[in-house]
Amino acid sequence: MKLTLLAVGRLKAGPERELVARYGARITASARPLGLSGPEMIEIAESRARREDDRRSEEARAIGSHLTRSTGSGSGNSGNRRLILFDERGKSLSSTGFADQIAAWRDDGVAATAFVIGGPDGLDLSLTQEAGLTLSFGRLTLPHQLVRVLVMEQIYRALTIIGRHPYHRAGHGD
Amino acid sequence: MKLTLLAVGRLKAGPERELVARYGARITASARPLGLSGPEMIEIAESRARREDDRRSEEARAIGSHLTRSTGSGSGNSGNRRLILFDERGKSLSSTGFADQIAAWRDDGVAATAFVIGGPDGLDLSLTQEAGLTLSFGRLTLPHQLVRVLVMEQIYRALTIIGRHPYHRAGHGD
Repeated sequence: MKLTLLAVGRLKAGPERELVARYGARITASARPLGLSGPEMIEIAESRARREDDRRSEEARAIGSHLTRSTGSGSGNSGNRRLILFDERGKSLSSTGFADQIAAWRDDGVAATAFVIGGPDGLDLSLTQEAGLTLSFGRLTLPHQLVRVLVMEQIYRALTIIGRHPYHRAGHGD
Repeated sequence: MKLTLLAVGRLKAGPERELVARYGARITASARPLGLSGPEMIEIAESRARREDDRRSEEARAIGSHLTRSTGSGSGNSGNRRLILFDERGKSLSSTGFADQIAAWRDDGVAATAFVIGGPDGLDLSLTQEAGLTLSFGRLTLPHQLVRVLVMEQIYRALTIIGRHPYHRAGHGD
């Protein structure tokens, strides 16, 4: 099962990008023995439309077309792929629950799972309706650059949980 | 009102420390016109006790003694200071709610508010009982180094909300 990170907005050079690269490298190193590959990382340009709604729907269309290219035809959970969105309005899940979901889809023969992070305007409702799961890091508003770091760390953590590596239980971020 | 960050564990040189420094500088630059000062940053050494409970209680004692030195005598919310803890078992609050709480304590003449972040073992129950507020970034487990970044960003965000700076509404982390 291929893991793809789809994020709206360009992550400038700096500490957030270093952290995304750190966890990306760890995911790559851990994925193969677990029957996973990736992460493929795709950045979607922020829309410049004047209205917030228009920006969100333009970004949703771009996300949809990248998903089709990256994970095969069909949209949303149709076909053989799954979407996990990160959004303030999403539900709260433990890291173990998140890992279990990824392992369950892998075991079901799902070909690709995409993790989708919106830009400053958040994600369009059409995407949240298509998604297999919408998760949140609580109600505190976070900058989307940091959300990208948190999602990558969480995917890495999930792989350590699936592979029974001590990282998660130790509580460390090392 | 003085703002103090108390965190268990040493943050090594690297991107997390750069991010803490970035938001620390922004907090310092924003604080004075709002009747605030800080952030003072205090690192508590991780306990090396063998049992997890012992580590937590040793760290809680160290936190208590630093609090007394930094924010005046008495413990917990006694005297003229408040504690906000960050812990997975905490409650979920919006960034606006978090900012309102800080502004309300400032307006009440509270002398110091301390933001407390545990180490890999989390925080001792004695501290959660003393705290004015225990907040969480959702149920997903996060590395404590990243929690430190998130807390600093959230304090900076609170100051922009109190000062009616556009940072929060824009949703950007720039």
